[in-house]
Amino acid sequence: MCHTNDEMLEMFEATLRQMQTPEEPKLLYTPIIYSMSGGGKRLRPVLLLLANEAFGGEAADAMPAAMAVEVFHNFTLLHDDIMDNAAVRRGKPSVYAKWGGNVAILSGDAMLITAYKLLAGLGGERLARVINIFNDMALKVCEGQQYDMDFEQMERVSVEDYILMIEHKTSALLSGSAMIGATLAGASDEDIKKLYRFATELGLAFQLQDDMLDSYGDEALGKKIGGDILEGKQTYLMVQAMSRATEEQREVLRNTHLREDLADSEKISRVKALYDTLDVKHATEQQIELRFDRALTVLDSLSVEEARKLHLREFARNLMGRKK
Amino acid sequence: MCHTNDEMLEMFEATLRQMQTPEEPKLLYTPIIYSMSGGGKRLRPVLLLLANEAFGGEAADAMPAAMAVEVFHNFTLLHDDIMDNAAVRRGKPSVYAKWGGNVAILSGDAMLITAYKLLAGLGGERLARVINIFNDMALKVCEGQQYDMDFEQMERVSVEDYILMIEHKTSALLSGSAMIGATLAGASDEDIKKLYRFATELGLAFQLQDDMLDSYGDEALGKKIGGDILEGKQTYLMVQAMSRATEEQREVLRNTHLREDLADSEKISRVKALYDTLDVKHATEQQIELRFDRALTVLDSLSVEEARKLHLREFARNLMGRKK
Repeated sequence: MCHTNDEMLEMFEATLRQMQTPEEPKLLYTPIIYSMSGGGKRLRPVLLLLANEAFGGEAADAMPAAMAVEVFHNFTLLHDDIMDNAAVRRGKPSVYAKWGGNVAILSGDAMLITAYKLLAGLGGERLARVINIFNDMALKVCEGQQYDMDFEQMERVSVEDYILMIEHKTSALLSGSAMIGATLAGASDEDIKKLYRFATELGLAFQLQDDMLDSYGDEALGKKIGGDILEGKQTYLMVQAMSRATEEQREVLRNTHLREDLADSEKISRVKALYDTLDVKHATEQQIELRFDRALTVLDSLSVEEARKLHLREFARNLMGRKK
Repeated sequence: MCHTNDEMLEMFEATLRQMQTPEEPKLLYTPIIYSMSGGGKRLRPVLLLLANEAFGGEAADAMPAAMAVEVFHNFTLLHDDIMDNAAVRRGKPSVYAKWGGNVAILSGDAMLITAYKLLAGLGGERLARVINIFNDMALKVCEGQQYDMDFEQMERVSVEDYILMIEHKTSALLSGSAMIGATLAGASDEDIKKLYRFATELGLAFQLQDDMLDSYGDEALGKKIGGDILEGKQTYLMVQAMSRATEEQREVLRNTHLREDLADSEKISRVKALYDTLDVKHATEQQIELRFDRALTVLDSLSVEEARKLHLREFARNLMGRKK
């Protein structure tokens, strides 16, 4: 009855391929097409469409909103890549690297406006509700990016503040997408609130797992280990370690990445040795399980029949790379 | 009966002073308050409110939209100042100069989203119509900025292309504001179209006059002469001069600003001497009069009583610095 994750992705990609922009000015619109056709997992539009269908919505009706959240997501990547000075995105040159900062700023702006143009295509009385959710989501994502940049300048970040940051930077776009999908299908306020909690917890589990894989991922699976450590990034492992460390250990945690006398592999193994000593991997795994369990529990409580929750559960598992 | 320009400005400033943003993250929201309280003529919100009142609207109802266009305008300034590497804005350090590019990008993004939040406050069935006008206006402004940057890299720009650029970069925000104001008051499609033409022509007259004052302004009035010439900017005078010049004269027009052997005053007088030879000042004055006349003629044809057009006419004259 309902579409699987793969079927939804396929329908979304088909719509995306039809996306058109004006021809001129070329330097404004070419980077938009480049960015949107650069792949990615399309997590947010797929979640929006699955949440919509779970409450009886038609994918075709929700497609403009699904496009809007994907365009918005790609807008954030254009601007984030300038701020993070990132030359590569999805294995290709970032817009910033390919065309320069000015083009990335302005094309990004045009993408944000384009997202609203897509939303406006929804029309009707649903528009006001959807735009309100979208605005709050979008502002939260900006706040998350600012917190993230603030943290890079801070010696020490509390575990609570770190969770708050990724709730803004990673979860908000997932929870907003789920809420918009459900809103378009006419779900109850209570169910919409549940979807918010589902996607928020899932986003946290996903980001914490991403943090963990940077230190404990499987290099055999092509995962490069230790990038966050070498950049001195704040991650869940780092903030947990800092909260458990002695003054002397903190010194090592915060300054190892700056030492010019150490090889990269040595820096990584020193920090990881401390993570092991402080039992940080275990604490992170526990937190991931806690968040993932909460997400699935909230999902169970949605007021729709079991068959309609199936593909949202599949989405959650796919996101975490789990079979069951 | 209707409010004067000064009264409207006063009402708008009073609303603006009440504007609130979240406290945190500080580096996201402080620049927004800094930018919004940095003065400026508030042309766009005042035009919106005047157009609204001309068709029987209440200023209080249109105030969220007036705030939205002013926030949008200030968003464009934040991002333009990065792209133009501009350190000063309204006699104070630009956000870009004060906090750096990353803050100017992200706070600008938050302002664009905030503009939509303000619009969403309008609610009701008007929302869809207003958002459509706003989206088209916003995208046109981005296109205008890109054309402007493209032109800086071009040897030669046609007069038509230059007019098209300023129609996007300068007129679109004025015409969009006027249309939104009238739409909120329930004006007919025909009157809204007329307001579009009024504000488009007025914006062109305003920008062309601005171009002219750079070369022929009154230094006694504190106007610094020749800034555009020294930057080698494309202006109406330059593109007109290029269209009338011999090959030899073109060489002088395009390369004088690059010559390191000439003093600034000498560069300016050489280019202005050619402007005089090619009768460019006169051509620009004619074009300004043509556009300004068209604007006032369209205004006369609005389907409201004369008393209701009074303050829009006052707006047009104020903008051009004219008594009558």
